[in-house]
Amino acid sequence: MKKIERAVREITPFYVMELLRKAQRYEDTIHFEVGQPDLPPAPGVKKALLEAVEAERFAYTESLGLRALREKIAAHYLREYGVQIDPGRILITPGTSLAFMVAYELLLGPGDRLGLSDPSYPCYKNFAAMVDARTLTFPVGPHNDYQLRPEDLGEAELDVLHIASPSNPTGTLYRAERLEALIRHCETRGIAFVSDELYHGLVYEGRARTALEFSDEAIVINGFSKYFCMPGLRLGWMILPEALVRPAELIAQNLYIAAQTPAQYAALEAFDYAHLDRVRETFRERRDWLYGELSQLFTIDAKPDGAFYLWCDVSAYRDDAVAFSEELLERLHIAVTPGIDFGERQTRKYLRFAYTRSIEHMAEGMERLKQYLRG
Amino acid sequence: MKKIERAVREITPFYVMELLRKAQRYEDTIHFEVGQPDLPPAPGVKKALLEAVEAERFAYTESLGLRALREKIAAHYLREYGVQIDPGRILITPGTSLAFMVAYELLLGPGDRLGLSDPSYPCYKNFAAMVDARTLTFPVGPHNDYQLRPEDLGEAELDVLHIASPSNPTGTLYRAERLEALIRHCETRGIAFVSDELYHGLVYEGRARTALEFSDEAIVINGFSKYFCMPGLRLGWMILPEALVRPAELIAQNLYIAAQTPAQYAALEAFDYAHLDRVRETFRERRDWLYGELSQLFTIDAKPDGAFYLWCDVSAYRDDAVAFSEELLERLHIAVTPGIDFGERQTRKYLRFAYTRSIEHMAEGMERLKQYLRG
Repeated sequence: MKKIERAVREITPFYVMELLRKAQRYEDTIHFEVGQPDLPPAPGVKKALLEAVEAERFAYTESLGLRALREKIAAHYLREYGVQIDPGRILITPGTSLAFMVAYELLLGPGDRLGLSDPSYPCYKNFAAMVDARTLTFPVGPHNDYQLRPEDLGEAELDVLHIASPSNPTGTLYRAERLEALIRHCETRGIAFVSDELYHGLVYEGRARTALEFSDEAIVINGFSKYFCMPGLRLGWMILPEALVRPAELIAQNLYIAAQTPAQYAALEAFDYAHLDRVRETFRERRDWLYGELSQLFTIDAKPDGAFYLWCDVSAYRDDAVAFSEELLERLHIAVTPGIDFGERQTRKYLRFAYTRSIEHMAEGMERLKQYLRG
Repeated sequence: MKKIERAVREITPFYVMELLRKAQRYEDTIHFEVGQPDLPPAPGVKKALLEAVEAERFAYTESLGLRALREKIAAHYLREYGVQIDPGRILITPGTSLAFMVAYELLLGPGDRLGLSDPSYPCYKNFAAMVDARTLTFPVGPHNDYQLRPEDLGEAELDVLHIASPSNPTGTLYRAERLEALIRHCETRGIAFVSDELYHGLVYEGRARTALEFSDEAIVINGFSKYFCMPGLRLGWMILPEALVRPAELIAQNLYIAAQTPAQYAALEAFDYAHLDRVRETFRERRDWLYGELSQLFTIDAKPDGAFYLWCDVSAYRDDAVAFSEELLERLHIAVTPGIDFGERQTRKYLRFAYTRSIEHMAEGMERLKQYLRG
């Protein structure tokens, strides 16, 4: 059963998941590891969800998803980016993860080559392993402002390039001209471009640009788990080039039939921009506060433009950030995510701090941390 | 982009999905094509779902699923089959389809060989295509009572054998000794055994036996979409051999993070056996009625023990059942599923009739059909 052995060998666990389990041992754990918002979704979401349940909307929707929801998403792109998207190009998925799987099933076969930045979200390479594709990683760091440039890829032969902006774990936003240059590089070479825009909305510096502003051929993936604060409702979307809609629909019909029905009705009310502004401002405040605190201790060379993470170089204190994360959990009951979850090059020097809890909660953690490190 | 071309070529659409779309053109369509129950889940499910939403349970659960739900499922196996299952061997999935994907990701790599009966549920071979495995099909029919026997497989070299009992599209239940013989055959040859038991509970003749009564190494897949009447809540489960739990959890963490949170809380109330008995009796009545009607017109050689389908040989009327299904839809506004969705050998002779609507609804369809065929 070589496939099982491969699953254990190649599909790496998230350390953050293991940490979450360990962290539950302590009642007073301070959570800097959690990758989901603690804020509620827009009030209308809860109301619509209750109504959908009352109305017993328990049957499947069509695989592409509720037409009304796909229209709301299209309207969102017009409002946020000024781009006109045919709702017929939008596929609703049961969470953003499955949108990645649909994209990889479409684009990558055994032996095909996926390009990723190092560091990047750990699932990407695991999805590649699931479709038996190979992953090539290209370092991002201070030398390229944590944004891949065409010259970083050089003549690498890739089938797919997959980027995220703002990025997990670094919070870096691709600047418009950088994004465009990368898309042109891919177009010229016949490399499919996948843009993970899940943290759009949670942007505090500059303005997020969708890949669709520069290309109708890009696959854009987004969802309701971060900015829209609905992680447990498991709902994402993808925007596909016209020619890929039908193949993606076939994959969706098989892979998951349709996204959850009541959640789709609930998401119709998710585009409450007054509420979403408050969500963004809450995270902006937390970012400002935590950045102020952590930059006194660690080197933060990735500009934290968005998402809800700070990527901290802790090598001034310890050689091995994995051991350091265990030390922090056991000694201080502080949970953080070791950088090694996200890549292979410099990642042993880094910890990822999430600001997904209140400033009061984080302040308690910072007190413990400062006392411990400064003695 | 060979992968996309393959998706279009190899991943066959469900004709039933296309039919559903066409059927919406007519206001008076009689639905014999629908693969989901029209009955509501147990009243406690709705109540628990409302409570979960009120309590804003919108965060992720752990990837294996709520411990309490896994315990309820284990208790269900003790009650129904007398088998003791460690809840730690149960994985909750966002719908049964994704349980198949997890199983195939675990067990099948490029070029590996999956064995299926012909006919069988069309997704199986599509999932195999997604992991680049090959599918070998073995005919079931009157010669083997629509249940694969070891001699039907012979010396075929397989990595996985995947059966369903009761089966979609035929409604056939594997008899205990037949199931056991097949499992022993697989064990002897190192063939992994996957048992789709999604239609358990909807059994009207004999008693459904789980593969777990005969082997701890079988992978058993089931869910809440049929017997429990919760299709749109997208919730399934799988029971794994001890050694596969951890690899399956890794795949789940990546593939979908966790099943929908409110739905998991709702499912805690799904094991309402008085309600479930009423569901079974409703479908039994419908089966009896529709079998009585259809067997006057068509040959039904598959014994309809369970599920909610009748597999009818229509070759006495038309050579091509696909063309016949289109004729019935266009002329009579009767939607049925052509057998070709389910296999490649005899399937052009068959139509699948689902009894997922009331007898009143079906009676109107039968009136139209009898008048049309008898002139």
